[in-house]
Amino acid sequence: MTTVNAYAATSAKGPLERVAIERREVGPRDVGIEIKFCGICHSDIHTVRGEWGPATYPLAPGHEIAGIVTSVGAEVTRHAVGDRVGVGCMVGSCRECASCVAGEEQYCLKGNTMTYGSVDTDGTVTQGGYSTHVVVAEDFVVRVPDGLALDAAAPLLCAGITTYSPLRRWGAGPGQKVAVVGLGGLGHMAVKIAHAMGAEVTVLSQSLKKREDGLRLGADHYYATSDRATFKQLAGSFDLIINTVSAELPIDRYLSLLKVYGTMVNVGAPAEPLELNAFSLILKGRSFAGSTIGGIRETQEMLDFCAEHGIGAEIEVIDADRINDAYERVLSSDVRYRFVIDTSTLT
Amino acid sequence: MTTVNAYAATSAKGPLERVAIERREVGPRDVGIEIKFCGICHSDIHTVRGEWGPATYPLAPGHEIAGIVTSVGAEVTRHAVGDRVGVGCMVGSCRECASCVAGEEQYCLKGNTMTYGSVDTDGTVTQGGYSTHVVVAEDFVVRVPDGLALDAAAPLLCAGITTYSPLRRWGAGPGQKVAVVGLGGLGHMAVKIAHAMGAEVTVLSQSLKKREDGLRLGADHYYATSDRATFKQLAGSFDLIINTVSAELPIDRYLSLLKVYGTMVNVGAPAEPLELNAFSLILKGRSFAGSTIGGIRETQEMLDFCAEHGIGAEIEVIDADRINDAYERVLSSDVRYRFVIDTSTLT
Repeated sequence: MTTVNAYAATSAKGPLERVAIERREVGPRDVGIEIKFCGICHSDIHTVRGEWGPATYPLAPGHEIAGIVTSVGAEVTRHAVGDRVGVGCMVGSCRECASCVAGEEQYCLKGNTMTYGSVDTDGTVTQGGYSTHVVVAEDFVVRVPDGLALDAAAPLLCAGITTYSPLRRWGAGPGQKVAVVGLGGLGHMAVKIAHAMGAEVTVLSQSLKKREDGLRLGADHYYATSDRATFKQLAGSFDLIINTVSAELPIDRYLSLLKVYGTMVNVGAPAEPLELNAFSLILKGRSFAGSTIGGIRETQEMLDFCAEHGIGAEIEVIDADRINDAYERVLSSDVRYRFVIDTSTLT
Repeated sequence: MTTVNAYAATSAKGPLERVAIERREVGPRDVGIEIKFCGICHSDIHTVRGEWGPATYPLAPGHEIAGIVTSVGAEVTRHAVGDRVGVGCMVGSCRECASCVAGEEQYCLKGNTMTYGSVDTDGTVTQGGYSTHVVVAEDFVVRVPDGLALDAAAPLLCAGITTYSPLRRWGAGPGQKVAVVGLGGLGHMAVKIAHAMGAEVTVLSQSLKKREDGLRLGADHYYATSDRATFKQLAGSFDLIINTVSAELPIDRYLSLLKVYGTMVNVGAPAEPLELNAFSLILKGRSFAGSTIGGIRETQEMLDFCAEHGIGAEIEVIDADRINDAYERVLSSDVRYRFVIDTSTLT
């Protein structure tokens, strides 16, 4: 075991603070990573505050990890010391079920091991990327292509893959009209990626406040959903809607924006049940779907795609001691568009 | 104009009764049909009672029409006098929009002309199949293959295509596990068709009352949804669920029965909004979709498929004077599985 510095929650109510956590020794198939940057995802806040179920403390969150390999186990073949690598939301899965065999470890039928707050195979609780070092099984470590800066790459490991996966699955590309609901951490990635895929991209945001940003990031159109005229004007327009908003939305109104056979995919998950009228789906053959992150193979594909298209997240790099302030700003949507912790400030 | 006998509602509250209605002259592209049989669909009841919006009376419902061609217009090429034909839920559409051009007239972007209760191009309100004769544009008339009896074929025009279309679209076939929720008019067709497509079929019904019927119709398994153990036992089992029930169901519980990437398709439409938790979709990449009837080309394909596989509806043929009784029995689910009116009893 190695003791490393981290920034962790020690209770559901209190602020995060500097703590020491343990990392396991690098096993034969493990990769030891010096974390350089870690993104702050809204899920981190939900989890450490116990909003998605009780947590075990201390808990260092963080699943948007970018760093450098510092050691590898004897049987490791995919990575070498000095490699630029990333770790996302998962650090393990059963590797045997139909989903794992299909490279869809995010849907592992036995339940995968999440990067933090999950009980690992050795019985310990996993600790995330708000830390200086981490040890991860090689097959859950992806390569960050040279063209991508590590800080701007970090958020791709969650926000990037979460939006890339449904865009690919539902065929975003030339000739397709894609709407992105919400221009936050997930939404801004969805806009960049959908645009790079060749789709015609529309942002649907509460107000026009971030309109210039949206257009700069690649959106072709930008509408305010607070303006009811938007829903009349855009009725039946979209092949695909990626809904990144975790707040409860009037689903029927958004479904009305889909073409015949169009699909709306929720990647944001409101805690409250959603209400919709079956006629919204039936009368146009529409679908309402959900999607979560992506498999390891697809995460690598996404990083390669982003490198090829020069896509990183729009970030604000912060010192570790500003994490609690950053949480408040995330909660008030005051970030354009992702906080990334410079983990060298933890040493 | 020709006056013909029909059975129609004259108000939202009263019983249906014998009336005379007008049919237009057979135009150059029209087909004149002597109706032999017409199925009774639950939609008929909703519509004449004004439950789906105000109706114009008198209104003869009926959109599961099977009969014989008695005359054709000068430009008609698809049908000839003496042909056995069917008419379903639509008798017209714009023929120009993207949906119509794709052969998906059920999703006509300008709104199609329904078989009854719709304002036709000449300004009259369409009258349905509880009648002795009807005049329909040739491209909304389909051929009933020789192998199908007209009485058992009639319900295929709505119940058959409504279930065939989503089964085809979502790939029901060998190796696929398909669940059918509800064993009524739609459900019993879904079971027969999914079985003929080669899928492994499970019926999910409130009780085991119709279990023997279900297995005889082609189901491999039959479960009672009133038994909560059913939902534990079948969790994550199905590629596709066809929900034929119009009553409000606990959607999350049914979604939990889907595999990763599975789809539940509603063809029944409850009037009340449905409630579901986004996590039910997100955590397994599932979809909740809707579907309505099918296009004319697909309706013909469905009839040919049914003829090839010896599939007709399970019917109880009744005289026109028993329509009001039949309505009561439909409302109390006391029919196995479709009432079909012998329209010769109207003459």
